[in-house]
Amino acid sequence: MASAQRIVLASRPVGEPRLDNFRLEETPVPTPGPGQLLMRTIWLSLDPYMRGRMSDAASYAAPVQINDVMEGGTVGEVVASNVDGFKAGDIVLGRGGWQTHALSDGKGLRKIDAKAAPLSTALGVLGMPGMTAYTGLLDIGQPKPGETVVVAAASGAVGSAVGQIAKIKGARAIGIAGGTDKCRYVKDVLGFDDCIDHRSRSMAEDLKKACSKGIDVYFENVGGPVFEAVLPLLNMFARVPVCGLISQYNAFEEEKGGKSMNFLLRNALVKSLTIRGFIVSNFAGRYPEFIADMTKWFAEGKIKHRETVVEGLPNAPKAFMGLLRGENFGKQLVRVGPDKA
Amino acid sequence: MASAQRIVLASRPVGEPRLDNFRLEETPVPTPGPGQLLMRTIWLSLDPYMRGRMSDAASYAAPVQINDVMEGGTVGEVVASNVDGFKAGDIVLGRGGWQTHALSDGKGLRKIDAKAAPLSTALGVLGMPGMTAYTGLLDIGQPKPGETVVVAAASGAVGSAVGQIAKIKGARAIGIAGGTDKCRYVKDVLGFDDCIDHRSRSMAEDLKKACSKGIDVYFENVGGPVFEAVLPLLNMFARVPVCGLISQYNAFEEEKGGKSMNFLLRNALVKSLTIRGFIVSNFAGRYPEFIADMTKWFAEGKIKHRETVVEGLPNAPKAFMGLLRGENFGKQLVRVGPDKA
Repeated sequence: MASAQRIVLASRPVGEPRLDNFRLEETPVPTPGPGQLLMRTIWLSLDPYMRGRMSDAASYAAPVQINDVMEGGTVGEVVASNVDGFKAGDIVLGRGGWQTHALSDGKGLRKIDAKAAPLSTALGVLGMPGMTAYTGLLDIGQPKPGETVVVAAASGAVGSAVGQIAKIKGARAIGIAGGTDKCRYVKDVLGFDDCIDHRSRSMAEDLKKACSKGIDVYFENVGGPVFEAVLPLLNMFARVPVCGLISQYNAFEEEKGGKSMNFLLRNALVKSLTIRGFIVSNFAGRYPEFIADMTKWFAEGKIKHRETVVEGLPNAPKAFMGLLRGENFGKQLVRVGPDKA
Repeated sequence: MASAQRIVLASRPVGEPRLDNFRLEETPVPTPGPGQLLMRTIWLSLDPYMRGRMSDAASYAAPVQINDVMEGGTVGEVVASNVDGFKAGDIVLGRGGWQTHALSDGKGLRKIDAKAAPLSTALGVLGMPGMTAYTGLLDIGQPKPGETVVVAAASGAVGSAVGQIAKIKGARAIGIAGGTDKCRYVKDVLGFDDCIDHRSRSMAEDLKKACSKGIDVYFENVGGPVFEAVLPLLNMFARVPVCGLISQYNAFEEEKGGKSMNFLLRNALVKSLTIRGFIVSNFAGRYPEFIADMTKWFAEGKIKHRETVVEGLPNAPKAFMGLLRGENFGKQLVRVGPDKA
């Protein structure tokens, strides 16, 4: 019998995840029952939100249970199908999780056209991260031509799309990223107007210089010291879509330290700020506009992207830990299996 | 020559304002020049925002300069006018400041109908505080029937209107106020569904009990411990209009203490919250709807209000200091002169 691999949550991390929070298991390849199909995973997406699923603190989604397979978005090939509308050989986007093979009843699966764009883009620029950028920036941030948009993790899957869409809409895009290489990429390849190295001691000053007219939209995906540097630069009526807080994910239990909630509220008050948390599913109805715009921009070369790929499911935990430390460069993916079996 | 009185800012307070931050001055009654009119103050409004004007920390409005007259909304009678459209005897709403007589070029003055409602309501329920409540609640809070709206300083000028408008719109209204008398008034007279005493040690628990379905709209006007009690009770997609932070006004220099900005952002993220600061002038275009609705509701007895009046301009500083400590009960006013001279 052929064997499958899966990675389960072995224990909940305290602070940074460690390798022993995960466990690799070998199982027989499952057989689809009536109303089920079997997918073979090609690509597994690694995303910061997964840190939240490892914790049982209240969040917008239920946590992964101990001994359950880690959740994650996947692109896979249908191997066998007892579900109407799907047949062997179909390429599907779904939430197969951290495993080489997954059963599904077909709900929530979306067939993708393998010829339209590289398969992995369905997990990045043309997928959830791209749509997070698109809806958060356009529906909450609402940048006007000439306004200044700032985004951190600017070389990452979400941040890179935020800045490029801002440019398409006529705004100035200022990125924040970790290290010279990433900053150069953000400016020279992605076409941001400037990029600040958050590892530099002069980060707050550099940001101020780059944002000489203040900040109108701050797309928040990191929290922590970057947010503290941004706050004094926000203009009247600035908008702050909050899509993530990667600097805080390993410290979610920490409620103290840094400036206070009252300080933030005071800033909201005196500057008429809008601070709005969201997850991409809040804007599910915007999928048609998103996919039409982004596919077009991608084909025209207006939206560029970059991927970091690790080979093989067993390397997913290490890559995920690196992602939380900012060690990836662009969209982090795990190559679980070949495009064609 | 007749004499006028005015109160100027003598020095900037550090923490709570003290009497010596103010100075009462006697001057001759001024004579209006060409293009000017002279108003005699009848009512002076005292409002929490004035604490911000005493400080030179950055805010949404410029601070009062040392030795300048304290700013404030007034209802007055035109004594003499060289301004087209105004004549002696007109009753006008304006920003005459903390003084018995004020010159104006007529800009920003609004004539009010002395027969429609008591003059003082133009500074309260039918004025800036009423409109702050109306626009913050309806334009940002957007309560739906059956949702739960929470407001602190619930017996005050803004809070009392917030809860009563929420009830008119079919929402549940839960107030927070200081002391048994105010809480009883908020429930029995204003008709809120419940009112929590923030002086009670069990405030957070009491609030949780009163909000068994969570909180959908929190109208923020106090900050501090009340906000900390509210935050865990906010429902998914809750809205937080931020109109003031009275608990923090004397501590604006304090940026630390209490839970952190990151904690607030995390809550915004996991619950898709909208936190939006505003001042009433953001919604100036909504004045016609506001005045039509509120005048009607007021005439129908659906909006009740209460005033605390101190007699005489010299008592304004003491009354203002009391307002910041919550010693007023309802809208705080200074009776500066009689309705008819």
